[in-house]
Amino acid sequence: MPVYDDPVGGRTVQAEALLVWTSTLVQRLGAPDDIADDVAEILIASDLRGIASHGTARLPQYVKLAEAGVMNPAARPRLERGKSSLSLFDAQNGFGHHAGRVAIDHAIQLATEAGTAISIVRNSNHYGIAGWYAMRAAEKGMIGISLTNTSPLVAPTRARVSLLGTNPIAVAAPAGKYGMVVLDMATSTIPRGRIEVAARRGETLPVGWAIGPDGSSATTPAEALAGSLQPLGGEESTAGYKGYGLSLIVEMLTGILSGAAFGPNIIGLFSTAGKSDLGQFYMAIDPDAINDSGAFAARLETLIDQLTRAPLIPNAPGPVLYPGQPEAERAGRQKRDGIAIDPEHHTTLVALADKYGVPFPETRAIETTASGHGSARA
Amino acid sequence: MPVYDDPVGGRTVQAEALLVWTSTLVQRLGAPDDIADDVAEILIASDLRGIASHGTARLPQYVKLAEAGVMNPAARPRLERGKSSLSLFDAQNGFGHHAGRVAIDHAIQLATEAGTAISIVRNSNHYGIAGWYAMRAAEKGMIGISLTNTSPLVAPTRARVSLLGTNPIAVAAPAGKYGMVVLDMATSTIPRGRIEVAARRGETLPVGWAIGPDGSSATTPAEALAGSLQPLGGEESTAGYKGYGLSLIVEMLTGILSGAAFGPNIIGLFSTAGKSDLGQFYMAIDPDAINDSGAFAARLETLIDQLTRAPLIPNAPGPVLYPGQPEAERAGRQKRDGIAIDPEHHTTLVALADKYGVPFPETRAIETTASGHGSARA
Repeated sequence: MPVYDDPVGGRTVQAEALLVWTSTLVQRLGAPDDIADDVAEILIASDLRGIASHGTARLPQYVKLAEAGVMNPAARPRLERGKSSLSLFDAQNGFGHHAGRVAIDHAIQLATEAGTAISIVRNSNHYGIAGWYAMRAAEKGMIGISLTNTSPLVAPTRARVSLLGTNPIAVAAPAGKYGMVVLDMATSTIPRGRIEVAARRGETLPVGWAIGPDGSSATTPAEALAGSLQPLGGEESTAGYKGYGLSLIVEMLTGILSGAAFGPNIIGLFSTAGKSDLGQFYMAIDPDAINDSGAFAARLETLIDQLTRAPLIPNAPGPVLYPGQPEAERAGRQKRDGIAIDPEHHTTLVALADKYGVPFPETRAIETTASGHGSARA
Repeated sequence: MPVYDDPVGGRTVQAEALLVWTSTLVQRLGAPDDIADDVAEILIASDLRGIASHGTARLPQYVKLAEAGVMNPAARPRLERGKSSLSLFDAQNGFGHHAGRVAIDHAIQLATEAGTAISIVRNSNHYGIAGWYAMRAAEKGMIGISLTNTSPLVAPTRARVSLLGTNPIAVAAPAGKYGMVVLDMATSTIPRGRIEVAARRGETLPVGWAIGPDGSSATTPAEALAGSLQPLGGEESTAGYKGYGLSLIVEMLTGILSGAAFGPNIIGLFSTAGKSDLGQFYMAIDPDAINDSGAFAARLETLIDQLTRAPLIPNAPGPVLYPGQPEAERAGRQKRDGIAIDPEHHTTLVALADKYGVPFPETRAIETTASGHGSARA
C-alpha cells in the first residue's frame, strides 16, 4: 500500500504547526482564509497518512501555478445546475481541494435528506488525496466516494501511448472499532512515484507495472519513465483490461460527465501551459436511511474481524490488512510524534518560507531506531 | 475479455425461440409470467453476449434450487424502506433477475426526478450477468451501475483461504455511435470458469490467477481449483491488494449495506444447504440532469475514438477495444445467426425440456469455417 517508509536523515514537524504554516503560505498566494484552510487541512492529512507525494511536498507546484496565473487561488466553486440528488459545480479554476470540500459537504447535506447524493465538479485542479473527501463523508457516518481524472500517464490495454490518467477511486465508510475502511487507489498497477523510487534504488521492475516507449514490458525504471504505466492487472493475460476499464469508468464519471477536459486532452496537472480543467465526482450514501442506526458499521466491523484473522500464505509480510489500515496507523503515530519529512522536502518548504516571509515551524532531527521506525529528537 | 470462443461441434438456436422456451420452462417451476419473462430475458442476453457461464446453461441449477424449495420462484421484491433517492428492497428469496429488474427500474424512475438514485436489495439470489442491469439504465440514456456479492472464492491479499466473492462491478453508459460502454468485470483476476477451461485444455496458469490450498501461487488448474482465486492485480507486488480492496467495497455496498449475508458467511450460490441471501446494488445517474441532452454520449464517443485509434504494442492481438465491445459484436452476430451452444449445454437443456414437457426449439449444427468463426446450417 502506498505508505512510504519514514525518510532517513529527515526531520519531523508537528502537524498543527505545519497546518498553520501551510494555510498562511497559501493565503500569501491570494487565497482567502477559508480556502487556504481547506488546502492546508487536506495537504497535512496526506502528510500524516504517509502519502508524501500528495502533501506539502506539492506546495512548490501549486505556488508555480498561482504565480503563473494558470490557476486562481481565490476562486470559489459555483453551483451551476442540478436536481435534488445530483449537482454540478464549476470550480472556476480554483484550488481543487477547496472545490472538493465544498462539493462533498454539499453531497453529504443532500444525502441526509435523500439517502444519497452526488456532486460533480468541472474546471477544477489537482485536489490532493482522493481519500480525504471520502473520509469526510465517513466521519458523518456515511459511505463516501471520490473520483478524479488526471493527466494521461496510463496506456490502455494493447496501446503503446498514454491516453488515460491514473484516475483514482476512493471509497470510505465507518467501520466500528476499526474506525474507517478507506480504499484510495490509483487504477494503474502502481503510481508513477513508485517508479521514481525504483529509479533511486536501482531496482528492476516486475512485469505489469509499465511499458517502455516501444510498447514492450519495461524492465528498468528508465524505460518506464519514458513509456507509460500499465492499468491495474498489468498484461492482457492477467486482466489488465479490467484496470483499463476502471480507469475509463472514472474518466466517464468525472471528465466526461462534468464537461471538463478528459483523457489525452488533459494538460499536465502542474504544467503552466494551460489550465487543468479536471473533473471530479463526490458521492455520499447514508446507510442509516435504510438501516437501524449503527448497524452498517457493526456489520462491517464483523467482516473485518473475519478478514484480518485469516490464516496466512507462506512468507506473508504481515497479517491481512483492511484498506486504509497502514495509513491510519501512520497518521496516529505522526499526530503524536510529528510528521516526518525528508531533507529535500524540508529544504523546499524552507525556501518557500523564506520567499514568502512565513517562518517555517520548529523541526526535530529523526533518530533511526533499531526497529527501523524513526523517532524524533531535538 | 470474458467472451468465449464459439463452441466446436455445437448447435445454434434462434434467440427469440430460446427466450420463449426459457420463459415457459421457468413458469413450470412456479414463476408467474412476468417473473419468468425477466429471468428468460436476462439469461438470453447473457447467451447472446457470449457469456455462456451466466446464461441458460445455469437453468439446471435454478431448477434444482426451486425444486428443493431453497428459493421461491414466485416471490416478488417488496420495498421495505428508504428516502427519495435510496431504497431498500427485500427480494423475499425470489429470482435475483426479477428483483434486479424491478430494482434498477425503480432507480431509473427516481433518477429521472432526482438526477440519481440507488436501489439496494437483500435476501436475493444469483442474478446472472451484472451488466444487464447497468445496460437497462444505459438504454434510457443514463449511467447504470450494478454490483452483487457472491459466495467466497477469493483470498484477500496475504490470506490463504477464500473469504470474499468474485464480487463483480458493472457500469454501462450510452456512447453515441458506439452504442454503449459496458464494463462487467469480476474483481478477481479471472473467473473460476476460466480455470475450468484451463483444466480442460491442460494449460498451466500465469502467476496472479490463483493460489493453491497451501497459499502458494497455483501453477496447475488442479491446485487452483482446490485453492482460491486471487484478486485483480494478483500478487502483493503487482497490487493485488487493490483488487482485494475493490472486492471488499462491493461487499460493503451489497451484503453489508443491505443487511444480507456477506463474505465468508454466504452459502454457495447453487447449494441447497440454505438460501443465498445475497445483497445487490443498483444505481442510475442521469447525465441530462446536469448536461445538455446528448452531450454526455457525444463526449464519450470522442474519447472512445481517441482510445481505439491508438498505436499498438508489438504483437497486439487486435486493436484497442472499449469495454463491452466484443460482447456487443457477439450479440449482434448471434441475434442474426442464432445462439451457439455446445453439445453438453444442448443436452442439458433438452433434458429439462423433456422433464417439464416443454419441447426444445429447432437447432442447427454449427459448421466451422476457415476463419474459425462458426456458421450455422440445418
